[in-house]
Amino acid sequence: MTIGIIGLGLMGGSLSMSIRDIYEDVTVLGLDHNEKHCIEALEYGLVDRIVEKVDDFFSVDVLFLAVPVDGIISILPLLKDIVNTDMTIIDLGSTKEKIVNCVPSVIRKNFIPAHPMTGTEKFGPSAAIPDLYKGKAIVLCNLADSGKLQKDLAKQLFSNIGMKIFYMDAQEHDRHAAYISHMPHALSYALANSVMDQEKAKAIVALAGGGFRDMSRIAKSSPNMWEDIFRQNKTNLLEAITSFTHELNKCKTLIEDEEWTKLHEWMGEANELHDIL
Amino acid sequence: MTIGIIGLGLMGGSLSMSIRDIYEDVTVLGLDHNEKHCIEALEYGLVDRIVEKVDDFFSVDVLFLAVPVDGIISILPLLKDIVNTDMTIIDLGSTKEKIVNCVPSVIRKNFIPAHPMTGTEKFGPSAAIPDLYKGKAIVLCNLADSGKLQKDLAKQLFSNIGMKIFYMDAQEHDRHAAYISHMPHALSYALANSVMDQEKAKAIVALAGGGFRDMSRIAKSSPNMWEDIFRQNKTNLLEAITSFTHELNKCKTLIEDEEWTKLHEWMGEANELHDIL
Repeated sequence: MTIGIIGLGLMGGSLSMSIRDIYEDVTVLGLDHNEKHCIEALEYGLVDRIVEKVDDFFSVDVLFLAVPVDGIISILPLLKDIVNTDMTIIDLGSTKEKIVNCVPSVIRKNFIPAHPMTGTEKFGPSAAIPDLYKGKAIVLCNLADSGKLQKDLAKQLFSNIGMKIFYMDAQEHDRHAAYISHMPHALSYALANSVMDQEKAKAIVALAGGGFRDMSRIAKSSPNMWEDIFRQNKTNLLEAITSFTHELNKCKTLIEDEEWTKLHEWMGEANELHDIL
Repeated sequence: MTIGIIGLGLMGGSLSMSIRDIYEDVTVLGLDHNEKHCIEALEYGLVDRIVEKVDDFFSVDVLFLAVPVDGIISILPLLKDIVNTDMTIIDLGSTKEKIVNCVPSVIRKNFIPAHPMTGTEKFGPSAAIPDLYKGKAIVLCNLADSGKLQKDLAKQLFSNIGMKIFYMDAQEHDRHAAYISHMPHALSYALANSVMDQEKAKAIVALAGGGFRDMSRIAKSSPNMWEDIFRQNKTNLLEAITSFTHELNKCKTLIEDEEWTKLHEWMGEANELHDIL
């Protein structure tokens, strides 16, 4: 099997590791606009060969689009020229509706819109790890419009690397992802900035325990990636931020009004999340 | 050395483990109003003996108060009757100003106000772990009013179990703790509740990746403990929530106005937290 990966960062690099771990005789071609990433990807053995342009992927069985979501939309029109009936094209973007709407109809059967619900705050080929995908959820969207060969291949491949597959409409995915991923990133960035704004930020941060470290970890995430996601999922993200703000204001009002019993109940409700998580 | 621990949960239990690991010939007496916790603490070897009332600690060298912060304030007056010149009393509460103000003057020299910046979302003796304190920060407050013997003992003990000691005024501690610990707990509770409020909460939560798990972890924390902390640090906590809300509103407005370059910069500023964390 020959696979192509556009974007040799955390997601693309880790995927290469996972696939090589499961499949024998895999050849991996990679493309990245960052030359340093290309060199590193070769050094780490994430790819067998670097190619220069999208056209060079004409012979691959599966092509993964593992760049930020606006990048995926820019690449889609170029794929019309290299596609053949049997090629599978899988995007790994964190938003799905705008991407699905931008897929040229001539490659729609080849296309699998996918969102693996995994990642770390790190980026680049050096961030790639072998177990990034194992045991994690992946959402496949709007598969009714994908070809049988492509659907079967994607399900088999993600299942083989240990992922739990969920099927969803792209719109529904984007609403869910706003709550489970995109809004939490906004919170983490806001938390980091609110602490950094304090006069004695260094003295405060010196005291950080595990709770703060966990809450602020994803505030280290790449603005290049997250600016795109926030733009593409604007409406759902704003709705999720509003819903969060409503809950935080509820907490604030209970504290201001010294409604301690109600505050206790509100905390108890939050505890219940972990019964379903 | 004989030590006493009031409150045989995560903090008290783990402290016993840490001290036993470093010091030879330590006898640990424990008190907890929860009978099940007393039995478990004995079973896990966290204590040598359970005592019935505060008076039974009259002979200990060091007494730790490891109960929720309102509980600490209730216990303080009882300590007048058992204290002797050489006894050291150390509270581990997450707020410091109200506690310091409630220490009876007759035991003030014996008293060390301390806040170890560590914990997990779990509680009870079964949550105790040997390395909870190792490598973590501890804040010691208002030591000018503590006795020399007590200060030396506390510094030596916390240093021996591997903690990094910070010295601070109780008021300053409470302001810092609001940002680094108390407000992040409010965020985590609010995040959990905003997701639980959604119609398809289960379907959303099924997709949770590491970011959401980290952000919502401390929403599992005990309302018994956190109601007290929010009450005792009301003013600083409200200020920290307001500062956070200001940052989140900034983010929301940038998204609404599609100010993507400014949003990118705002995310970049948040990234800088990790240069000092």
